[in-house]
Amino acid sequence: MTATAAFTLENPVFRTYAIAASLMVLKMFAMAWLTVYRMMRVNGGYRSPEDTRKSLLNPNPSPDQTQPNDYVERIRRIHHNDLENVPAFLAAGLIYVATGPSAALASGLFYGYVASRLAHFAAYVTARSHEARATCWTIGAAIVMYMAAASLVHALLG
Amino acid sequence: MTATAAFTLENPVFRTYAIAASLMVLKMFAMAWLTVYRMMRVNGGYRSPEDTRKSLLNPNPSPDQTQPNDYVERIRRIHHNDLENVPAFLAAGLIYVATGPSAALASGLFYGYVASRLAHFAAYVTARSHEARATCWTIGAAIVMYMAAASLVHALLG
Amino acid sequence: MTATAAFTLENPVFRTYAIAASLMVLKMFAMAWLTVYRMMRVNGGYRSPEDTRKSLLNPNPSPDQTQPNDYVERIRRIHHNDLENVPAFLAAGLIYVATGPSAALASGLFYGYVASRLAHFAAYVTARSHEARATCWTIGAAIVMYMAAASLVHALLG
Repeated sequence: MTATAAFTLENPVFRTYAIAASLMVLKMFAMAWLTVYRMMRVNGGYRSPEDTRKSLLNPNPSPDQTQPNDYVERIRRIHHNDLENVPAFLAAGLIYVATGPSAALASGLFYGYVASRLAHFAAYVTARSHEARATCWTIGAAIVMYMAAASLVHALLG
Repeated sequence: MTATAAFTLENPVFRTYAIAASLMVLKMFAMAWLTVYRMMRVNGGYRSPEDTRKSLLNPNPSPDQTQPNDYVERIRRIHHNDLENVPAFLAAGLIYVATGPSAALASGLFYGYVASRLAHFAAYVTARSHEARATCWTIGAAIVMYMAAASLVHALLG
Repeated sequence: MTATAAFTLENPVFRTYAIAASLMVLKMFAMAWLTVYRMMRVNGGYRSPEDTRKSLLNPNPSPDQTQPNDYVERIRRIHHNDLENVPAFLAAGLIYVATGPSAALASGLFYGYVASRLAHFAAYVTARSHEARATCWTIGAAIVMYMAAASLVHALLG
């Protein structure tokens, strides 16, 4: 068991984890950049008082620039949803690697999680129904909870 | 030292970490589900404009459904407190495993952290005094800071 | 490659990661304590209704104590920015260790990230221009995205 459970790229399960985890890290930062893009596009949605000062990138400041703007806030909500999800996936996925699952099952869970989060983004950014968004979220949540529960059982009984 | 510091389930310290970390991941997702439960129960506390559209799960929509509702917001605050704490624990705990602590000390820290977070939840969800909540929080924070400081010293001097 | 990619403190790259990661965990908790310090100093900026009850630490309560206070909210914004950044760094950095980078490159990235986040804090807490803050943020974001992209390429092709 030790060989398959190793945290090295020679272990196909860890390799799959590394791919999925790196994609999710990039996805999270994409949300940050998308927030920046939308703030620049609407020239608003800022959060700090100093952001309404005159500067090179803000030649015509206005106090309205710190008013909430849903075009920007929507991406912040998606980003916040990532904060509630992705760090837990990153940790639970790594620990799950240590339980030595089959490469096929692990790939299904890791890539299924990535797919569920991309679908969640697509549903949220286009303002689909709460049900569509919640379905994507639930798939990802179920995968992380399954991995955490499997790791718990394995560590307690294994 | 190498043997005891390994990230495998054969190492009792890593095993204890895996148990505590999996419990904390499940605890975080329990907050998300509790938010869902309370939103459904009060039929409100939603956050996105599209959540007030008529749908299968929302047959009688109202604009009030996106008004803040403290019954829901309380769980969001607890969840947010987890976001500030648990990812740091997950990383600091894993790194601390690599320093090769005794199984007894590590168990005390890992399970002490889990207990402090469950007590924090109990104090917060029942709206106990700020002092009660802060005491639980401080115990958990002290454990994570201790592990990070011990790892830092070990990596710098070890 | 296996030897240099190991997650043990004998591996200089992992050791550097452990130092940087522990510093970032301590930095995050410093934000929490700084929030506490500022809440106590202004006797406000609280978030929960029960925080305006009379208690040992709050002998003269007032409903105004849950009004937003920018002196406190500024630290919360900095802390929130950490939540969007640091967990991703902690995971991406660990996975990057597994790709077996040179100790020199890894040290530059890990300590560069730490320096960028301390500079971000300094720029934010003193309310410098949005551009100064954004520059520090971008350096840290670029480092994490580079590590995630390098890990992705390494895991896919390596």
